[in-house]
Amino acid sequence: MPDTSDSLSEPTIETKRIYEGSIINVRVDTVRMPNGISARREVVEHSPAVCIVPVDENGDVILVRQYRKPAEAALLEIPAGGVEEGEVSEEAVLRELQEEIGYTAGKLVHLSSFWVAPGWATEFMHAYLATELTPSRLDADEDENIQVVRVPFDDAVAMFKTGEIQDGKTIASLLLAKPLLT
Amino acid sequence: MPDTSDSLSEPTIETKRIYEGSIINVRVDTVRMPNGISARREVVEHSPAVCIVPVDENGDVILVRQYRKPAEAALLEIPAGGVEEGEVSEEAVLRELQEEIGYTAGKLVHLSSFWVAPGWATEFMHAYLATELTPSRLDADEDENIQVVRVPFDDAVAMFKTGEIQDGKTIASLLLAKPLLT
Repeated sequence: MPDTSDSLSEPTIETKRIYEGSIINVRVDTVRMPNGISARREVVEHSPAVCIVPVDENGDVILVRQYRKPAEAALLEIPAGGVEEGEVSEEAVLRELQEEIGYTAGKLVHLSSFWVAPGWATEFMHAYLATELTPSRLDADEDENIQVVRVPFDDAVAMFKTGEIQDGKTIASLLLAKPLLT
Repeated sequence: MPDTSDSLSEPTIETKRIYEGSIINVRVDTVRMPNGISARREVVEHSPAVCIVPVDENGDVILVRQYRKPAEAALLEIPAGGVEEGEVSEEAVLRELQEEIGYTAGKLVHLSSFWVAPGWATEFMHAYLATELTPSRLDADEDENIQVVRVPFDDAVAMFKTGEIQDGKTIASLLLAKPLLT
């Protein structure tokens, strides 16, 4: 079988809109598979997003702790958020840094871009390393309640094993940034 | 402010069920934030899942390529899937390996567990390294169309930069497995 997208593509036969929300929409597509069978695909629509590994002059990474309703727990993560209408990724990075940790960055390096749940969600995440940090504050969203936590970089990586960090984008992004910091 | 979950927790005041589907459900919770404000939380419910880094005796990682409707593209990922009712994670790992790549594993090592989109989804992913692979086939789901792709491990890691691999769980899991393979 040739290894091309064509042999795998799934044209949409029908789309049913289920829900239009504030951060997500939901639709169900009926698609035709290459073998002729039709199948249902549940799709959660979400804006593109950014996540950022902010590292200060001491080599500490600045993390955020916030209550995550789906997890019913306060999780330790790197700063992140949706790319807003009219923004490019780097603008969203600098805005989120100012809103969530109170810093802006003199230097950004793109680490990678990835789908967070490609089987059923459209969220595409752009990961950046941010250094040359200087204080700069923008007001956070009223419905966000965020604590800032500084951790030596290697201690943060060790937290993947202990379960103190249990967030996919944080694990991927810290490990992508690691070779650039040593 | 003390760094405890209590100071961040968000009790549910009201839940509205939006959609009951086959791989996802959707609800909207109204919560009370610690500052007394109420806020809406859109939550996509998804089963726990597993993802697997299968490495053969040559040091190749066995990846799968499948069309992902939310991405409208055929993506290269590690094997993965939901944990089914009555299964423990390791059983789901061995089932998915047999369904998606036609192998079972003599050795599994837990790498880490993480939320894939903790802001709005309940999917919790358990990542494993699988070695001592031997052929064993279970039929794949009828609505899945999967191509198997073998790649030298270091080549796969290089694909994060080229964009040939654009999947969060794959990036996180390969980088978690890397120190165990050298």
